[in-house]
Amino acid sequence: MSGTLYGIGIGPGDPDLITLKAVRILQQVDLVVFPAPEHGPSLARSIAAPHLPGRCAEFAMRIPMTAARFPPDHVYDDAARRIGAELDAGRSVAALCEGDPFFYGSFAYLFARLAGSHRVEVIPGVSSLTACAARLGTPLAARNDVLTVIPAPLADTVIARQLEDTDAAAIVKLGRHFARIRALLVREGLDSRSAYVEHATMGTERLIPLARVEAATVPYFSMILFHRRGQAWQ
Amino acid sequence: MSGTLYGIGIGPGDPDLITLKAVRILQQVDLVVFPAPEHGPSLARSIAAPHLPGRCAEFAMRIPMTAARFPPDHVYDDAARRIGAELDAGRSVAALCEGDPFFYGSFAYLFARLAGSHRVEVIPGVSSLTACAARLGTPLAARNDVLTVIPAPLADTVIARQLEDTDAAAIVKLGRHFARIRALLVREGLDSRSAYVEHATMGTERLIPLARVEAATVPYFSMILFHRRGQAWQ
Repeated sequence: MSGTLYGIGIGPGDPDLITLKAVRILQQVDLVVFPAPEHGPSLARSIAAPHLPGRCAEFAMRIPMTAARFPPDHVYDDAARRIGAELDAGRSVAALCEGDPFFYGSFAYLFARLAGSHRVEVIPGVSSLTACAARLGTPLAARNDVLTVIPAPLADTVIARQLEDTDAAAIVKLGRHFARIRALLVREGLDSRSAYVEHATMGTERLIPLARVEAATVPYFSMILFHRRGQAWQ
Repeated sequence: MSGTLYGIGIGPGDPDLITLKAVRILQQVDLVVFPAPEHGPSLARSIAAPHLPGRCAEFAMRIPMTAARFPPDHVYDDAARRIGAELDAGRSVAALCEGDPFFYGSFAYLFARLAGSHRVEVIPGVSSLTACAARLGTPLAARNDVLTVIPAPLADTVIARQLEDTDAAAIVKLGRHFARIRALLVREGLDSRSAYVEHATMGTERLIPLARVEAATVPYFSMILFHRRGQAWQ
């Protein structure tokens, strides 16, 4: 009998923000797969580390630096082949996903390659979206608010239009786009109703006023939350 | 020393989709508070039940049926007064929140009343947004998708414009608005790229093709996910 691939949301960074269900599955699988940079340790693995039983096989998918713009098909093709062979042999596999597997996660690339031919189960996790709101102490959305998640790499005109037509927004994937996004928020007069956080719930978490963020240091795992009424609960 | 109010995301319904952090806090607090209907059991309490130590005080905030449209200020005023007194006496309080406390949660009403005067910590949880995507087996959003969360009570013209201007959407708070929303999706030619789920991850979960949903039975805890490309990973 063929094994199951579990896409496991391991939460936003604090190892205690993983679910009981995710921990239970991690302690039963035969192989753990996780994304990692070309060189060096995997953030996903480090988040899940306290919950790994330490006796199962591991496999790092090494993703080239340029992956944010060009998903590296060969890496996911290779990983899917390897995972597929494990499943065919009756072994179970857990793919670790920062936050939630289906919220802008690279797990979608594995899912697209394997869900048609194998049993895949997705275990939802705490996403960066709600983790950032919790750490900033500001409700994301309430009552009949429209809430829009906007990737920072999009063009200024697109982002400005989305902000104009929503009550609340999360601008994600900031990284090297931060300076441009901040300038846009200032230009549109929305900066005073926006808050910045990086590495929410991790040991390296920083909450910094938007005006004081040093653009050159902004990591990929950062977010700006915006609310038209300043605070969603008012 | 004054106690802490914890806003605890207990996840979307499956008791195992609660975080380790939430469970740890639930087993330490002096009082557990939860929303409940005017008569009958509380959904939030039933989700968290396996994790309650059974020896701490409990307090049900009884919310009138009309609350979706008119948040009952007197209920939250009373609850905040009672919780504030507990905190002032040095006791710790956990407020149970379905999904995540800051994602359209009624916890925002307690937060607004108590965060200025007391220590409040929000523990993010798995939201219905990612739980529904996991159960439907469809990525919410990928790459540079714009993702919009749209409350169903909004006017058709607003909803149609939001759908037109996004890559992916979640239409929430369906309940008695379902028939109108489905007609709108059909009219706009978007129904074939939309999927419906109710009570995701609960024992009563149902995944039903949009065309076959009986409008009269649609609960508040239901969602339609839409993606312009049909499936986000393509």
